[in-house]
Amino acid sequence: MADWQVVAGGVTAPKGFQAAGIAANLKPSGAPDLVLIVSESDAIAAGVFTKSQVRAACVDYCRQRLEAKPNARAILCNAGQANACTGAQGWQDGLDSAAAAAKALGISAGQVLIASTGVIGQRIRMEALQAGIPKLIEQLSPQGSAAAARAIVTTDLVAKSIALEAEIGGRPVRVGGIAKGSGMIHPNMATMLCFVTCDAAVSPPLWQDMLRRAADRSFNQITVDGDTSTNDCILALANGESRTPAITAPGPDADRLETLLSQVCIHLAKSVARDGEGATCLFEVTVTGAASDAAARQVARTIAGSSLVKSALFGRDPNWGRLAAAAGRAGVPFEQDNLRIQLGDILLMENGQPLPFDRVAASQYLQQQADHSTHAMTQQIKAGSADAAAALAQPVQVTLSLGMGAGQGTAWGCDLSYDYVKINAEYTT
Amino acid sequence: MADWQVVAGGVTAPKGFQAAGIAANLKPSGAPDLVLIVSESDAIAAGVFTKSQVRAACVDYCRQRLEAKPNARAILCNAGQANACTGAQGWQDGLDSAAAAAKALGISAGQVLIASTGVIGQRIRMEALQAGIPKLIEQLSPQGSAAAARAIVTTDLVAKSIALEAEIGGRPVRVGGIAKGSGMIHPNMATMLCFVTCDAAVSPPLWQDMLRRAADRSFNQITVDGDTSTNDCILALANGESRTPAITAPGPDADRLETLLSQVCIHLAKSVARDGEGATCLFEVTVTGAASDAAARQVARTIAGSSLVKSALFGRDPNWGRLAAAAGRAGVPFEQDNLRIQLGDILLMENGQPLPFDRVAASQYLQQQADHSTHAMTQQIKAGSADAAAALAQPVQVTLSLGMGAGQGTAWGCDLSYDYVKINAEYTT
Repeated sequence: MADWQVVAGGVTAPKGFQAAGIAANLKPSGAPDLVLIVSESDAIAAGVFTKSQVRAACVDYCRQRLEAKPNARAILCNAGQANACTGAQGWQDGLDSAAAAAKALGISAGQVLIASTGVIGQRIRMEALQAGIPKLIEQLSPQGSAAAARAIVTTDLVAKSIALEAEIGGRPVRVGGIAKGSGMIHPNMATMLCFVTCDAAVSPPLWQDMLRRAADRSFNQITVDGDTSTNDCILALANGESRTPAITAPGPDADRLETLLSQVCIHLAKSVARDGEGATCLFEVTVTGAASDAAARQVARTIAGSSLVKSALFGRDPNWGRLAAAAGRAGVPFEQDNLRIQLGDILLMENGQPLPFDRVAASQYLQQQADHSTHAMTQQIKAGSADAAAALAQPVQVTLSLGMGAGQGTAWGCDLSYDYVKINAEYTT
Repeated sequence: MADWQVVAGGVTAPKGFQAAGIAANLKPSGAPDLVLIVSESDAIAAGVFTKSQVRAACVDYCRQRLEAKPNARAILCNAGQANACTGAQGWQDGLDSAAAAAKALGISAGQVLIASTGVIGQRIRMEALQAGIPKLIEQLSPQGSAAAARAIVTTDLVAKSIALEAEIGGRPVRVGGIAKGSGMIHPNMATMLCFVTCDAAVSPPLWQDMLRRAADRSFNQITVDGDTSTNDCILALANGESRTPAITAPGPDADRLETLLSQVCIHLAKSVARDGEGATCLFEVTVTGAASDAAARQVARTIAGSSLVKSALFGRDPNWGRLAAAAGRAGVPFEQDNLRIQLGDILLMENGQPLPFDRVAASQYLQQQADHSTHAMTQQIKAGSADAAAALAQPVQVTLSLGMGAGQGTAWGCDLSYDYVKINAEYTT
């Protein structure tokens, strides 16, 4: 049973954080496009960044900043222009953005982390950004998370947010997060971003390690189209305002905090997968019996990312052959005679050979999960609610066992629909 | 300038080969489904097989056979049932198929290689196969390649065949090939198969090495949907009937033979990519200036396989941002400030930054290449011709330079259309 609970408030749920999101005329549409998250006190900061060789200025900036000194007071994020492939001028724009926010906040420029999302090859509209900063700071509030979550989205259908609370050292600790992303990348209107806040006190290397592992379990386990953005980043601040004892070494308290952080990341990652371009359902693949957790995750990821599996899912086709074939090409050795595949409660394959099963019932299971998920998404879009939990509650579940060891892992994806092709074929800047 | 020429005859163009393809009631549709290729004398044999952990019986059988003794007299191939995920009985069916063909040909069972394509989880219809073998042998002919090429296809729109001739040691040598495949895999109606014949005399290790390298340059450089089949295989026979001096060591003669073999494989691989499910054009990505050929190939393959790039191609959208982003995530280090991207003759990006370019002209280039290719395909389908050369003549060409070294490589793919989703979402066995 989970020893944590969901609380309201997103990134402002943890103590000592404020946030704001406003429309600053960066997006041509006039939608909200500028976000600030501020910790009232100096926070430990960790980051996980895109591994792409083609990276936005903000990614290189934050990585260098955090390598030099793992702390920060604020995260400034603009939507509309990705500031990737913008050369030396783009780099300078990044520095200027951080400096402008820092000056207005009365802190040093090095204390501001930056993130951008939007059209690749376009510089940030610096005049609009600089004009927006005073208004943004005016709007900062301990209830500002929902506005921030709405202002970082681009093609997302719903904003993505969560906060969790658990007791650590006898006192409540909270971790909150917001994220955006609708394909793993849409390079002209791009990017997966996630900002996490936490009020625990934790040592910088421990916090960075936790974030890396949490990302491996969550954002690195989702796929919409197999593409990686130039701007992907996760930034996580921990400010110690919960006044719990500092966590400086591995142990039960560190484990509890890492669980909290992982659950926040997993919820947000699943929200991104469910909001994948054109998706009609969330797809959850669990692999057990692998030689290691890493091997299990790799097989799960390969299946979740297979175009043929994703197309079958859209067609509500319980196609075990495609699941077996995707597992086989994942680059993980296993004995095919031990393979076992289950869809929901229905066993499709055992000992590497197909079983007779009720095709109609299996297809109905796929349809029913998709219907539930679509209904919940529609309700959220109507309500403008940032809580995607209902749409995540009934994923299509596939379970594979490799019969080799105790390794297990889960990956999330979505189906491949006509709308994915439509969105990406007909999209122009 | 190429020092080889295209000749008619496919796998029966090289001396001393006969082939046949018949309808033996293996496919429910009654279409041709049983193929035999026979060398009049003992031939050196090499093979390249799927790396999947889930493999058909024929794949394991051929690999073991060729490891034990690299020679063969015949290749028997059935279409309709993949004989994958069929356990011990499937293995026995494979042995029995080889034995039945061998007995009728009056050779030993070990001299017959086998291949299967079709529905995963289904055993070969052994009665139909055994009843078909005498008729198949009756049809064997030095003009039988076209019938064989037509009988190995499943969802392919056109049969795929080529033969080339060059002089080696003052005498003509020929290499011929036929292939099938329309997705890299469609696990219920599956598989990429390629059979190559050659009348040069060549030593077994040299022939196997040449085939491995030719596959790396051709079939390993195409992608339709990133999936790998349980049954993929390339089998290549060389019988020495050209009476040219035996090629037993690297040198100019070996190089000439390898070029011939590579060109046959590249032509067939491009034909498979062009015939990708739902494709409207052939997509050729050339990467230069990489640290190595392997690195260049990897970047080219990643771009050719990107769902976002493929969707943009279908939308005739000259989306340089997606090309740059796909290059960036290929896992090959390069300096983004040196990146150069060209579409046909149009320069889109230089020194890592976008250039102003004529979007309308670039989009027209994409449309024009697709129109030409579609027209040529339609003509072929009407004509029932196995020569896909015209449809391959005008690919959409993208060239990237990484500015790092002399490494270069090419990959081929196709666009991602509504029809890909339709074919794979609505397909059921």
